[in-house]
Amino acid sequence: MDIKLDKNINTPLYIQIYTQIKNLIENNHLKEGEKLPSIRSLAKKLKVNNITIVNAYKILEEEDLVYSKEGSGTYVSTKSIPLNLPYIENESIDLMTSGILTLSKNSINFASVSPIPELFPIEEFKQVLIEVLDRDKGKAFVYPEINGYTPLRESISIFLKKNYTTDVDKNQIQIISGGQQGIDIVAKTLIQPGDYVFLEDPTYSGAVAAFKSRGANIIGIPILENGIDLNTLEKYINKYHPKFLYIMPNYQSPTTYSYSEEKKEKLLNIAYKNNLYIIEDDFLSDLNYTDHEKLPLKAMDRQDQVIYIKSFSKIFMPGIRIGFLTVPCILLKDITKAKHLTDISSSGFIQRAFDLYLRRDLWKSHIEHIISVYNKKYNLIVNEAKKLQKHNVTFSEPKGGLSLWLKLPKDINTFELYEECTKNNVIIVPGEIFYIDNNNKNKNYIRISFGTVNEEQIVDGFRVINNCIGRNGINGNAKFIPFI
Amino acid sequence: MDIKLDKNINTPLYIQIYTQIKNLIENNHLKEGEKLPSIRSLAKKLKVNNITIVNAYKILEEEDLVYSKEGSGTYVSTKSIPLNLPYIENESIDLMTSGILTLSKNSINFASVSPIPELFPIEEFKQVLIEVLDRDKGKAFVYPEINGYTPLRESISIFLKKNYTTDVDKNQIQIISGGQQGIDIVAKTLIQPGDYVFLEDPTYSGAVAAFKSRGANIIGIPILENGIDLNTLEKYINKYHPKFLYIMPNYQSPTTYSYSEEKKEKLLNIAYKNNLYIIEDDFLSDLNYTDHEKLPLKAMDRQDQVIYIKSFSKIFMPGIRIGFLTVPCILLKDITKAKHLTDISSSGFIQRAFDLYLRRDLWKSHIEHIISVYNKKYNLIVNEAKKLQKHNVTFSEPKGGLSLWLKLPKDINTFELYEECTKNNVIIVPGEIFYIDNNNKNKNYIRISFGTVNEEQIVDGFRVINNCIGRNGINGNAKFIPFI
Repeated sequence: MDIKLDKNINTPLYIQIYTQIKNLIENNHLKEGEKLPSIRSLAKKLKVNNITIVNAYKILEEEDLVYSKEGSGTYVSTKSIPLNLPYIENESIDLMTSGILTLSKNSINFASVSPIPELFPIEEFKQVLIEVLDRDKGKAFVYPEINGYTPLRESISIFLKKNYTTDVDKNQIQIISGGQQGIDIVAKTLIQPGDYVFLEDPTYSGAVAAFKSRGANIIGIPILENGIDLNTLEKYINKYHPKFLYIMPNYQSPTTYSYSEEKKEKLLNIAYKNNLYIIEDDFLSDLNYTDHEKLPLKAMDRQDQVIYIKSFSKIFMPGIRIGFLTVPCILLKDITKAKHLTDISSSGFIQRAFDLYLRRDLWKSHIEHIISVYNKKYNLIVNEAKKLQKHNVTFSEPKGGLSLWLKLPKDINTFELYEECTKNNVIIVPGEIFYIDNNNKNKNYIRISFGTVNEEQIVDGFRVINNCIGRNGINGNAKFIPFI
Repeated sequence: MDIKLDKNINTPLYIQIYTQIKNLIENNHLKEGEKLPSIRSLAKKLKVNNITIVNAYKILEEEDLVYSKEGSGTYVSTKSIPLNLPYIENESIDLMTSGILTLSKNSINFASVSPIPELFPIEEFKQVLIEVLDRDKGKAFVYPEINGYTPLRESISIFLKKNYTTDVDKNQIQIISGGQQGIDIVAKTLIQPGDYVFLEDPTYSGAVAAFKSRGANIIGIPILENGIDLNTLEKYINKYHPKFLYIMPNYQSPTTYSYSEEKKEKLLNIAYKNNLYIIEDDFLSDLNYTDHEKLPLKAMDRQDQVIYIKSFSKIFMPGIRIGFLTVPCILLKDITKAKHLTDISSSGFIQRAFDLYLRRDLWKSHIEHIISVYNKKYNLIVNEAKKLQKHNVTFSEPKGGLSLWLKLPKDINTFELYEECTKNNVIIVPGEIFYIDNNNKNKNYIRISFGTVNEEQIVDGFRVINNCIGRNGINGNAKFIPFI
């Protein structure tokens, strides 16, 4: 192992050692399973203290590049794809570009709900960007209002009325830098360490992470095909007195389930009776492949108790990093404060451009276009998934959104299936990683998303899944390395 | 008082009442000090429950629009400018555009350190924005890497080397959506409820707010003209075992003090000895009006223990909402996780444009231009401030940055001075609001910033300050309404 130290530069020695070993591993000069030199021998060779080597190995271990065996030494880790909970989810960055998953270029990625760049209305958006620069000049880059650029809040108020028959005053709209920030800001506003918060189970891991980071106790309420289990909800409200309930009423992630109208009404009444805030995360409502209206829960809220978080990442472009949330009057001050200490304000330039985009009424043709593209993919993928019924794979048709939630027979180990598919360049997501409660039954699901894949890939990908399920050996012992 | 309720719309009745009373107050139909109808009488008149009126009045009170006198009733508040701690500070949004301060258009605003739009390199930036769109098309709007667009991290690594002789590998750079987000992410990564963190006293209130929001105990260490008081620091380290020390080594806000080289060296040694992280917030180092180099503390850090947060808001454009922080290797994973749960990633579009801007070497001429503009204003303001010496006002010349920190004689009440100046359309900032420790002595300062004012305003503004200090009555009882 060839390591050169430079004692004349600022970089600490342990960092120099760490970096060089990391490079050796990444470039395969150190192979999987290979043993690293002992701490003492490497320290001697490099003429440094033992502690310097200890520190370098510690970071390598923290990054899962190596692991240590008690009494034996340090070894290069096996390159497993780290199915890290926070990174596979609806609002996730594209797994491939993130480097979290290193997929070969021709992988078929059923893990991503991100739209493909070809669907972005780049030309139209470029026009409004340029127009804003010409119109506002330097003003486009001053600090905007903390709660957001006023004309955009107006546009969004109109947007809500027109598209979702939802009345929200512009002064109750807070602009956010994407849906995840909305979750973070709500967490900052409402959660004190030790508080209980409720989520659907399974759910979006990015919300779980944000709430946990504030010291919340996380309670999962099972979600059924027509929405959250209200009996459990009521029982748990009395037991835990939660700060809020976080839900995705339309095309829930990962289950793809939508709440029935009846359940929505009952849920609101429970919330009103118990003085419970509902955080509604809406990132997909618009992708509706039926003729029936699909409204947010917020549209039915009579008592200003639903905090509606809207992300445009999936239905417009992830890179816009602009969304909004609706703020109950009583929380206006606290939400503004939380937004201010989070990032002062969201990009005024992009806010101005998005405002113009909405005012120009460019939204309608855009959303119609992407619905027609996704609808086609949806029909194809439902068709392909039905072919798995011969293996006793079942699912309910969401008729919207970007995923299917396939229930597998109990004798199929979804992590093994995931590994088998990965070997064949097809990436699926084992459902188990979305669950809060490890004791929850009936977890034998996989999530198949079609945000990124094209039609040819859908067909090819399902052929692989079909083969892998049909093959022997899937129901053996999982070799999956548990996520953190 | 004319209020109309519509029971057929979704907006709750108490919100309808709140909104209409708010409008009446804002449009001066309800005057300052005027008594609102009693709860019972208004409820009767509007045919609603008493509790509906109670709720409406509660929100009005929360927003400081009204106040209640025990046993007497509810009254319209006096319109004081809420000198709210989180809103007057270095990274603050422009106070005027924020609506926090409602200044008349011809106010002379010595409270803002924000640059004026005329200084923004809009034409150059527009060119790189368009170039990015033409070059990358839809890719400009996909999710970028959580830690930031790789070419930008490279450009910044080069930028650090070239401008600050500071070596930081691109893999140790985390792109952030402005300096405040850097503070929030560090807080998320390092603070558990109950932890102690140290800050200079006085300091930036946005940092205090972010740390408090994570449940930290805040300890202020007095700052002297050559940097933080090391004796107190060492004593307190042993007593409190803090998670980190947050400082602004160059042109500290609000004091404008810079650390001496000797003090920097000593401070680093204390940090190394005690395993203490130093969070260096740098938003002004570049605005140096001397020929002597002004390097960040990070440039001297040999043990990867300074977390350097760089904001471009003051030296480029606030609206860019892009900055970076340097990450100790051992924290890489945790910082990435914290960034992910904060907002997934910063705008890839703006990151790509800023990368091109740096690569085109447009930075140098921009920074030289703004230094020359600010230097001129600086010389003028120092000259004007010296005229206050006849009133025993003293200050040390920072020779950089965007503010002066004027020490007033003890018999002048800075809050009264603030009110007097405000009446004359000149906005200054009483130094006391920046202090953590209320028992701290020698607080008789005001901060005068010249980010926004022009030369004529500087002269006119100082004439007002001069008159107000010279006048009788400033040293009476303060009528200032304390901030929260």
